[in-house]
Amino acid sequence: MLNVGIIGGTGYTGVELIRLLSMHPGAQIVTITSRTEDGVRVSEIFPSLRGHVDLTFVKPSIDLLSQCDLVFFATPHGVAMEQAQELVDRDVRVIDLAADFRMKDLTQWKKWYGIDHSAQQLLDEAVYGLPEINRKKIQDARVVGNPGCYATAIELGFAPLLSSGLVDSDSLIADAKSGVSGAGRKEELGIIYSEVGDNFKAYGLSGHRHHPEILEILRGLAGTDIGLRFTPHLLPINRGILATLYANLVETNSQMVRTSFETFFENEPFVDVLPEGQFPDTRSVRGSNFCKIGLQVSEDERSVLVVSVLDNLVKGASGQAIQNMNIMFGMDEKMGLNGLGLVP
Amino acid sequence: MLNVGIIGGTGYTGVELIRLLSMHPGAQIVTITSRTEDGVRVSEIFPSLRGHVDLTFVKPSIDLLSQCDLVFFATPHGVAMEQAQELVDRDVRVIDLAADFRMKDLTQWKKWYGIDHSAQQLLDEAVYGLPEINRKKIQDARVVGNPGCYATAIELGFAPLLSSGLVDSDSLIADAKSGVSGAGRKEELGIIYSEVGDNFKAYGLSGHRHHPEILEILRGLAGTDIGLRFTPHLLPINRGILATLYANLVETNSQMVRTSFETFFENEPFVDVLPEGQFPDTRSVRGSNFCKIGLQVSEDERSVLVVSVLDNLVKGASGQAIQNMNIMFGMDEKMGLNGLGLVP
Amino acid sequence: MLNVGIIGGTGYTGVELIRLLSMHPGAQIVTITSRTEDGVRVSEIFPSLRGHVDLTFVKPSIDLLSQCDLVFFATPHGVAMEQAQELVDRDVRVIDLAADFRMKDLTQWKKWYGIDHSAQQLLDEAVYGLPEINRKKIQDARVVGNPGCYATAIELGFAPLLSSGLVDSDSLIADAKSGVSGAGRKEELGIIYSEVGDNFKAYGLSGHRHHPEILEILRGLAGTDIGLRFTPHLLPINRGILATLYANLVETNSQMVRTSFETFFENEPFVDVLPEGQFPDTRSVRGSNFCKIGLQVSEDERSVLVVSVLDNLVKGASGQAIQNMNIMFGMDEKMGLNGLGLVP
Amino acid sequence: MLNVGIIGGTGYTGVELIRLLSMHPGAQIVTITSRTEDGVRVSEIFPSLRGHVDLTFVKPSIDLLSQCDLVFFATPHGVAMEQAQELVDRDVRVIDLAADFRMKDLTQWKKWYGIDHSAQQLLDEAVYGLPEINRKKIQDARVVGNPGCYATAIELGFAPLLSSGLVDSDSLIADAKSGVSGAGRKEELGIIYSEVGDNFKAYGLSGHRHHPEILEILRGLAGTDIGLRFTPHLLPINRGILATLYANLVETNSQMVRTSFETFFENEPFVDVLPEGQFPDTRSVRGSNFCKIGLQVSEDERSVLVVSVLDNLVKGASGQAIQNMNIMFGMDEKMGLNGLGLVP
Repeated sequence: MLNVGIIGGTGYTGVELIRLLSMHPGAQIVTITSRTEDGVRVSEIFPSLRGHVDLTFVKPSIDLLSQCDLVFFATPHGVAMEQAQELVDRDVRVIDLAADFRMKDLTQWKKWYGIDHSAQQLLDEAVYGLPEINRKKIQDARVVGNPGCYATAIELGFAPLLSSGLVDSDSLIADAKSGVSGAGRKEELGIIYSEVGDNFKAYGLSGHRHHPEILEILRGLAGTDIGLRFTPHLLPINRGILATLYANLVETNSQMVRTSFETFFENEPFVDVLPEGQFPDTRSVRGSNFCKIGLQVSEDERSVLVVSVLDNLVKGASGQAIQNMNIMFGMDEKMGLNGLGLVP
Repeated sequence: MLNVGIIGGTGYTGVELIRLLSMHPGAQIVTITSRTEDGVRVSEIFPSLRGHVDLTFVKPSIDLLSQCDLVFFATPHGVAMEQAQELVDRDVRVIDLAADFRMKDLTQWKKWYGIDHSAQQLLDEAVYGLPEINRKKIQDARVVGNPGCYATAIELGFAPLLSSGLVDSDSLIADAKSGVSGAGRKEELGIIYSEVGDNFKAYGLSGHRHHPEILEILRGLAGTDIGLRFTPHLLPINRGILATLYANLVETNSQMVRTSFETFFENEPFVDVLPEGQFPDTRSVRGSNFCKIGLQVSEDERSVLVVSVLDNLVKGASGQAIQNMNIMFGMDEKMGLNGLGLVP
Repeated sequence: MLNVGIIGGTGYTGVELIRLLSMHPGAQIVTITSRTEDGVRVSEIFPSLRGHVDLTFVKPSIDLLSQCDLVFFATPHGVAMEQAQELVDRDVRVIDLAADFRMKDLTQWKKWYGIDHSAQQLLDEAVYGLPEINRKKIQDARVVGNPGCYATAIELGFAPLLSSGLVDSDSLIADAKSGVSGAGRKEELGIIYSEVGDNFKAYGLSGHRHHPEILEILRGLAGTDIGLRFTPHLLPINRGILATLYANLVETNSQMVRTSFETFFENEPFVDVLPEGQFPDTRSVRGSNFCKIGLQVSEDERSVLVVSVLDNLVKGASGQAIQNMNIMFGMDEKMGLNGLGLVP
Repeated sequence: MLNVGIIGGTGYTGVELIRLLSMHPGAQIVTITSRTEDGVRVSEIFPSLRGHVDLTFVKPSIDLLSQCDLVFFATPHGVAMEQAQELVDRDVRVIDLAADFRMKDLTQWKKWYGIDHSAQQLLDEAVYGLPEINRKKIQDARVVGNPGCYATAIELGFAPLLSSGLVDSDSLIADAKSGVSGAGRKEELGIIYSEVGDNFKAYGLSGHRHHPEILEILRGLAGTDIGLRFTPHLLPINRGILATLYANLVETNSQMVRTSFETFFENEPFVDVLPEGQFPDTRSVRGSNFCKIGLQVSEDERSVLVVSVLDNLVKGASGQAIQNMNIMFGMDEKMGLNGLGLVP
């Protein structure tokens, strides 16, 4: 039985980790920390956990945390980079659900997150936790940077096309739409119900933090520079990301497009390529760890459309983190992640 | 042309006043204040007003405000009671959309709002701005306390029954449901989309500020003590209150019940009593100043059910304030308030 | 391994049975029928099941069905009463999720469902499948009538009060609110998004089919006649029922009220009585089999307020059906039902 | 006072026509037809109209209709083309809110609507009712084909770019999202709340009826062939379309892009081009006749992003129809259309 800790358990990725781990037969939460809720029972903040989860928030303590095999950081960015080294030194492996260990480019990091990175050495060894492209490296990683939710949806949607060289890597468009939980559990005027409900908008058009993260990964897949226009939108739904992806084909063989997806994801337990003519909706993955992908070559065979959906709190955050945990500790990659989408 | 001022125009009741007044042929906004947004164009905060409303927020100034015939306070409670006297002294009439001039009982006021009332004299002369019961007094009022949204829906729903003595005034239940805009435009964890969307709950069960306000009015209508259980709930909708009201009949003549409503509201321009068998939904009054009421005597003729709906920002706040303004200044009571419910 | 069949798998209770059974370690679906979708893969209608559920809809066949240990009817009312006898004769046990085996009173049945009951003998032996009051009878039942969703929420909320004689059984009010999935998966103008979204209403005020079902059960609990006013409302949410219940106390000992709940549900795996001052929201049970209950005695100790929530498709339908299955076949009652509420 | 008739008043465009016309000082509804609701008061179907609209549905009658100056067809496609000639012959002008008079290309029409066009002569003289490009022709038109909702949003968003030749007309992408009321008021499984609520999807990817309509108009603006990828999505909101538009620039002068919009829409009463850095949300036009447009040239100045929003029932249907009416009869184009967006 794996012993895990959660640092920062009062946000949505935190409670989702708890929900998923409570059904995981191979791991148990031994400590969950919160500075603000120290001493409060977790089920008091999240009554959905009553009767199943008998944990109490505690202040972070290196003694407790060092008894863990693995610690999840479900904290805002900037926390993990301060605390991860201490854990790694005690042979505790780390998965950060924030952005601290996602990007290798320190200049970009500082530009988008406004602070210097304080753990460059760990960052160098950290592995980007997208199993579909980094599974082998994840197995032995001491530190995993868990991908962003937009990033996961977009990278999985473009990966087969770029790695097979089927599309013009300079022509990419990601028109992406996210549910509100992606913005986190925090007091912010722009995400109160009366501002979001029965409403829809684009946002972050002057630049979004996931953009450079996505570029780094896509560049690696394509082996060349990437031109990507990325437009995030805010959906009046709780969970779910749907990314509508556009790219121009360099070859006009439409069958190769479909084949590239089927081959790339052939043995992937959590990526589902839908048959021709079918496209996924966000609810089909609500609460599940699946990324579902539909695709269509345009009639003139000059471009391809990909629709990629996932639950931003599961495959886009906590579920993917547990998938990474399973890989890191040699467990069945699907363990604890067999919940199906909640429909309706 | 009436000159009006708005103090505190950045909340939802503020922008709703602006929206409604922009279509009012007999009044114009001459000043709108905000301490935090001083110098900012109103249409920058509320882009829906672009091209129609050419106002800029300014710091409150007694010089500007004293040029108004009427000033609306669209501020949190506690502001109007500090500033109204100064205006009244300069012959400016006042409508407060917050709670400062609603309740006569100072002990209750302090209990629920946590501060001493600082304008007792003005409070004594202030009129509770529910036209359906106080129209005559409103005509000459210098200070009007505009009713709360829950209060308006519940008081109008019980008024005919209590004033005609048809129900046991000790048996009242108001099971009320409100859209989220009733909570205002503010940063608060409990009203962010991810906490409210696709969710429903009761709240304020240890006591709600509208309760004593309602009791005061109902007591006046009944001429006796009131026993009222009031349960507010939070709906995942933007606008709208629906109050489901229950009372035990003292007489078992069901026709008298319907007659009491039709008589009480006979000439009311903004209360619509639906025919037998029909009950209103919240959208039928979305954006309009109507209160719609459906009612049904139980089969055993021992109790009555009333369903009362209104738009919490219109008849429950800004629309009613303008209705009061129309009455105070001898204009057609319906002026500027003829917008129909936005369906769907 | 239990072999189960599902008759009528294209509705929401059908897909929810499939979702829950796919995670059940002790049961497997061997046949799922649909007259309209014969030959179609289940995952084509419900893409959320792709990769996990490899079933194809077939026409109902007594040969296939008679190989089952248990058959669920997820059909409209009137179907199970025609087909159950044939199954029972072949030693197949039956759980009907519709209304055919809920009420013993045939006159009421005909009044509300418009047809004569065609299986009176089976109805006589059928057990009402609310484990919290009928667990022992369910163990040996050949036919179980699975309770309605409103009925479950309201019965569990009133049960401790009525069985302990703490309340005036003539004073009951159930102000209940349901998500739209309770209306089923069907083409109906009143439940299209544009009629329901950002809207709220009461409905069924001339009488609701769940009313007589609830009365029968409450009468049994109270051992006396029941006076119940029941007002259903339609919430713009997918899943969830919240029932706000009111009753007048005959004793004014508020501690006895809380004790009655804690005692009644002491060993219940799926009823959670919240601590004083806490009330449940619908999302806390989204996708889970829990019924959560909050309660409060009024300040004057003359009445009690109960808030009861459940997921209408789980504890209000398919989850409760599986709970009944577990009981009928001597399995752990919680088996396959340990999913936690999906929050947010 | 203009006398107008409405054919087919039971859908959403019908009730929206009624709502808007009830506030129009220069027009009155003299007849409103419905075959299915003959004899029923309009306010019985739409209680929001009670007290303001005293109309009763009647069967279509040429006698009544020929007394009108103008008749709106708020019917499904295929109706207006059968009945318009008869009206035109009696000097009644016609605005069809369906598709019968939008496209000149009869082959495309038959392909997308499945029937032969039966009024080719009228179609030849019919004017596409987008005032921003056809105002002069609309003035004298006897028959106006009112544009589709997607079409209006997309055409207005691309018009300045194409007419000024700033973009590669072969590179257009319209990623468009619509509220559910765009699908009409009808019994259809795919639009019931439980299928749409808390969900999001792309649809119509094998081809959408608005595509050829849009192409025809854009071709006219560009004076050349158009390559447009159009992806509609279904939003869980009642009203509103947001189209995110992409195009590659042929010139890299970003200031020319903004100027092209400001020039093109300089005197347009209902198109609002937002300042640099601002982008519209759908609620800012909820219930109003505005189309609001935000735009941004990419950092590398190789492409442009346009966000265009409107209310699909107002500027996307009934509001635009009234705007056309105003133009056709020489009234102030803004008459009756000065309602502001309902926020929140």
